[in-house]
Amino acid sequence: MTVTVTEPWKPIKWWGWGDPTRHDELAPAAMEMLRSGLGVDGRKSVPVRLEAVRTPPSRLAAPIKQGLLEVVGDNAVRDDQGTRVVHAAGKGYPDLVRMRTGDGEGAPDAVVYPATAIEVWRVLEFCSRQRVAVVPFGGGTSVVGGVEPIRGSCAAVVSLDLARMIAVTNVDERSLTVTLGPGLRGPQAESALAQKGLTLGHFPQSFEYATVGGWVATRSAGQASTGYGRIDDLVSGLRCVTPSGEIVLPPRPGTAAGPDVVELLVGSEGVFGVITEVTLRVRRLPEARHYEGWSFASFDQGAEALRHLEQGPIALDVARLSDEAETQLGAAISGTPAAGACLAILGFEGAPDDVERRRAQASEVVRTAGGTPLGEAPGIAWEKRRFEGPYLRDTLMDHGVMVETLETAAPWSGLMRLYEAVRSAISSTLELRGTPGIVMCHISHLYPDGASLYFSFAARQQPGMELQQWQAVKSAATDAIVGAGGTITHHHAVGRDHAPWLAHEIGPASVEALRAMKARLDPAGIMNPGKLLPPIVGASV
Amino acid sequence: MTVTVTEPWKPIKWWGWGDPTRHDELAPAAMEMLRSGLGVDGRKSVPVRLEAVRTPPSRLAAPIKQGLLEVVGDNAVRDDQGTRVVHAAGKGYPDLVRMRTGDGEGAPDAVVYPATAIEVWRVLEFCSRQRVAVVPFGGGTSVVGGVEPIRGSCAAVVSLDLARMIAVTNVDERSLTVTLGPGLRGPQAESALAQKGLTLGHFPQSFEYATVGGWVATRSAGQASTGYGRIDDLVSGLRCVTPSGEIVLPPRPGTAAGPDVVELLVGSEGVFGVITEVTLRVRRLPEARHYEGWSFASFDQGAEALRHLEQGPIALDVARLSDEAETQLGAAISGTPAAGACLAILGFEGAPDDVERRRAQASEVVRTAGGTPLGEAPGIAWEKRRFEGPYLRDTLMDHGVMVETLETAAPWSGLMRLYEAVRSAISSTLELRGTPGIVMCHISHLYPDGASLYFSFAARQQPGMELQQWQAVKSAATDAIVGAGGTITHHHAVGRDHAPWLAHEIGPASVEALRAMKARLDPAGIMNPGKLLPPIVGASV
Repeated sequence: MTVTVTEPWKPIKWWGWGDPTRHDELAPAAMEMLRSGLGVDGRKSVPVRLEAVRTPPSRLAAPIKQGLLEVVGDNAVRDDQGTRVVHAAGKGYPDLVRMRTGDGEGAPDAVVYPATAIEVWRVLEFCSRQRVAVVPFGGGTSVVGGVEPIRGSCAAVVSLDLARMIAVTNVDERSLTVTLGPGLRGPQAESALAQKGLTLGHFPQSFEYATVGGWVATRSAGQASTGYGRIDDLVSGLRCVTPSGEIVLPPRPGTAAGPDVVELLVGSEGVFGVITEVTLRVRRLPEARHYEGWSFASFDQGAEALRHLEQGPIALDVARLSDEAETQLGAAISGTPAAGACLAILGFEGAPDDVERRRAQASEVVRTAGGTPLGEAPGIAWEKRRFEGPYLRDTLMDHGVMVETLETAAPWSGLMRLYEAVRSAISSTLELRGTPGIVMCHISHLYPDGASLYFSFAARQQPGMELQQWQAVKSAATDAIVGAGGTITHHHAVGRDHAPWLAHEIGPASVEALRAMKARLDPAGIMNPGKLLPPIVGASV
Repeated sequence: MTVTVTEPWKPIKWWGWGDPTRHDELAPAAMEMLRSGLGVDGRKSVPVRLEAVRTPPSRLAAPIKQGLLEVVGDNAVRDDQGTRVVHAAGKGYPDLVRMRTGDGEGAPDAVVYPATAIEVWRVLEFCSRQRVAVVPFGGGTSVVGGVEPIRGSCAAVVSLDLARMIAVTNVDERSLTVTLGPGLRGPQAESALAQKGLTLGHFPQSFEYATVGGWVATRSAGQASTGYGRIDDLVSGLRCVTPSGEIVLPPRPGTAAGPDVVELLVGSEGVFGVITEVTLRVRRLPEARHYEGWSFASFDQGAEALRHLEQGPIALDVARLSDEAETQLGAAISGTPAAGACLAILGFEGAPDDVERRRAQASEVVRTAGGTPLGEAPGIAWEKRRFEGPYLRDTLMDHGVMVETLETAAPWSGLMRLYEAVRSAISSTLELRGTPGIVMCHISHLYPDGASLYFSFAARQQPGMELQQWQAVKSAATDAIVGAGGTITHHHAVGRDHAPWLAHEIGPASVEALRAMKARLDPAGIMNPGKLLPPIVGASV
C-alpha cells in the first residue's frame, strides 16, 4: 500500500538555518548578557548576498554533464550559482562561518537529482568510469561536514540530491513497518504516516529539514529516542546502491545470519553507496503525550534519578536533564527565574491510561531520588522550542558569537568524569585563546547502561581566525572525550570533522576492515571522499 | 571488580548431548507412537565405543606442534584420540549420525587451549605463518556445522578450545554491565553473576554447554529473549583477536560513529578472528517469575494474540506458541490430554507487583483475542523441560529416528505463509523419500514487526542414507524459507549448513564486502574455513 506525500518541500537559508525570510532579533536582556558575559561589542554582521559568494568555475566537462543529463533527464543536472551554493556545505558552525563570508570554494561542480534507484545506479556507474566523486545529499543538515563536496583524487565532484526520491510504500499495518524514500524530510515522512495513524517517532533537532536517508546514513537519534529507539533500532531493512551493485536487505524482525549488514550500511555516511529506500519500524500515533518538568539540586543527583528510572521497569519516551549552566541560561532567556539548580524534562507518550500509570510510577522514583516536581509548564515550553536551537545560532552569529554543540555518550559509571573532562577542555581552550565562554550540557538520551551528553558552548569570535578558534576547541573537546572513554559522536556522525578520531573509537584493524569493504564496493573511490574514514597518512586524498 | 567462577566444568557425550553417564529410555506409549506413526521397527542401535572411532593420523608436523606448545605451554596442545573426537563435530543431526557410527574423519589434527588473549594472538600469528587452519571452539554445541574442523587450503587444522578463558571482570553495578571470558558456559556465567544479584537472562536450549563466546559469535537468542533481548542486543563492547591485530571495542551505550563494528563481529562465527572477551548488559535477578499456559483454537488465532501483545505496551519476557501438531505431541508425551488446539506459554519476570500488573493486563488482551487460560501448570512443566530437547534426540536416534530442528523469522504479515511453505516442504520431501514424518512448529520469539518460527520434525531414518535424507529435507526447507521471505536462520547461525544460502539472505555484493573484510583481517585464510561465507564456485576450498 502506498501513501501520497502532501507536505510541501520548503527552502532553507544557504548561509544558515530555516526559512530564508525569517530573521530573529535578540531580546535586549540577551544582548546585554552577550556584552557582559562574552565581551561582544554589539556590532552586527550580515551574510554576503548570494550573488557575492565566490564559487570556482565548474570542473564538469561538457561531455560529462551531457552523460549525466542522459541518465537523469533534463532539469535534473544543475550547475547554476544558487544550486551549487546551497550544496556547498552542511550546517555546522565552520560551514556557516565560510558561507556567511561568501566562501563558496567548496561548491560542487554540479548537482544531480536522480528520481529512481536505477538512475542512482547509472549515475554511480557513469561517475566511476569518469572518476567523478559523488556526495549523497539529503537535507544538507550535517553538522560534521558530511555533505562537503570533496573531490578526493577525482577530477570533479557532484552532489547527488535525493529530493525526488520520496516514495512512501509497503505500509504494513500488521507488521508495523513502512518503506520510505531517502529524500523524505521529517515533516513529509510524519505527515504521510499520520494519514495511516502511524508515527516513526524520530525527532532530531534538525527534523524540519533532515531526511530519512540522512538519518539512516548518519545513525541519528531523535529527542524521543529514549522511548522510540535510535534510527538504528528502527531500521528493519534497506536498499543501498553501490558502484559494485545493489545491496537489497529485506525487512527482518530478527536473524542470526552472520554479521549484520544492515548495521554496516546504517552509519555508512555514503562512503559505500547511496541508500535508496529504508523499511522502518513504526508505531501507532500516541493518543496522549505528557511532558513535565522536575528540578534537582545538582547534575549528578538528576543523573542518578534518570539512571534509576531507566534501569527500572518504567519506560520513558523523552528524558533530558540540563546542568546548572544550561538551566540558568534557559531561565534567563525565558525571563523566569530557575526553579532549581538543574531542570529535567520527562515525557510519556501512548494510551492515556498507560501514560498516566507510567507518569505516576516515575514520579515516585524521581521524588525518592530527590527531584522536585515543576508540573507541565516546563514540558510544554520545551516542546514548543524543541527545534529552535539552530535558529538562535544564526542570530548569535550575527552578533559575532561562536556557538557550537557536540555530543558523546558513556556508561553511567564514567559519565560524570566524562562530563567534567569535556567541560574543562572546552573552557580552558577558550580561556587560553582570550575568549572565555559559556559551556553548558544536558543529558539527552538514556540507555540502561549509560547516557549521552550534549554540550553547547558560546564565546566571542576571534575575527579572521574563526575557523582556527573553532578547531582548537573541537580538537580539545574530542581529545578529552576519547581520553575519558566517551564515544566521539552519539548522534551527529563522523563526517569530515570526527574522521581523524575514528581509529581511536574502533581501532586501526576495524578501520582497515572498513577500508577493505569500501575498496570492494567502490573500487574507483568516488563515494563521498574525505568522510568517515580517516585520511591515510602520506597519501594524497 | 572480579567474580570467581565456582560452577564446575562438565563433560559432554562425544556422540550426543549431555552427561555421558545419562541414558534415557522411551516410555512404552512413546515407543508405540514411533512404531505406528513413523514405522520404526523397534530395534535399537548404540553408538560405537570411543576406541572404535576412525580418526586419521594427525597432520600436525612435529615442529608445528612444538611451536604451538611453546606458545600455550605443556598440556595445552592435545592430540589424543578422546580430545580429537570430542572436537570432531558439533551437535547437529548430521554430526551425530557420523559420530555414532564411528566416523571421526573430520577430527582436528590437534586441540589448542590458550589461556589469554595474548596466547590467542600468538597462536594466530604462528598458524598464519605455518598455514594451519584455526577453528574457534566454545561449547561445541553448534547445530549448523560451525565448529567442524575444515582444513580449507591449509596444511592442517587445529581446534582452538577456549575453555580456559573464563574470567568474569569489570562487574559494573552502576552501568549494569559485566565483562565475560568467551569460554564461560551458561551455568558458569549465570552462577557467577548471581553472586552479585545479576543475570544475563540468556537461556538458549543449549544453555548447559554453550558458551558466551559462542553465543556472540553465532548471534544467538535465548528462550527469554523476547524480554531480555537477543545476544546482539546485550553486547555493549568486545575484544576480538584477528590475525591482523586485535580489535578493541570498549563498552558503549549508544554511538553514531559510523558502521557498527560490534555488529560485524557479533555473528562473525570465527571467520575474522577469535572473540576473547565480551562486555554484556545484565539485569538485576528478578524477584518473581511467572509462567502460565493459554490455549487457542488455531495457530493463527494464537499468533494474532501474541502480535497484539507484542505491539502494545505490555512487555513479555517469554512467549511461545505451539501449533496443533506440537501441542498434540506434547500432550501425548506428558500423558495428559491437550486442553485446546494450540498451547501458548507466556512468562513474566521482575518485581512481584510489576509481574502481577503485566500478567493481569496481558490476560485481558489474550482473552479478548480468543485465548483460554490454563493456569501455571503448563508454564511450570515447560520450565522444567526447557533444556530437554537434545536429550530426547539421542533417545530417538537410538531407535532409528531422524530428528532435527530448524528456525526462521519473518514480518507478521508473511508469517503464516512462511509457516505453511516450510511445513509443506518438509512433509512432502519426507513423503517423497518414503519416510513420511511428523512436522511441528512453535513461535519462540516475538518482535514488534514479526516473530520466529521453530520447526521440529521426525521421521524413520533411511539406513545407510541418513545424511542424504537429511540434506534433502534441509535443502527443501531452506529453499522454502528463502522463497517465502524468511531469514535462513533466526538463532542457529550460518555455519557450514546455511552457507550456500547466505547470498540469498544478504545479496552477492554484501557477501563480497564480507570477503574483502576477511581478506584484510585474515590474509592467510586460516580462520574457520568453510563456515559462514559461501564457497566460491570453481575455487578449491
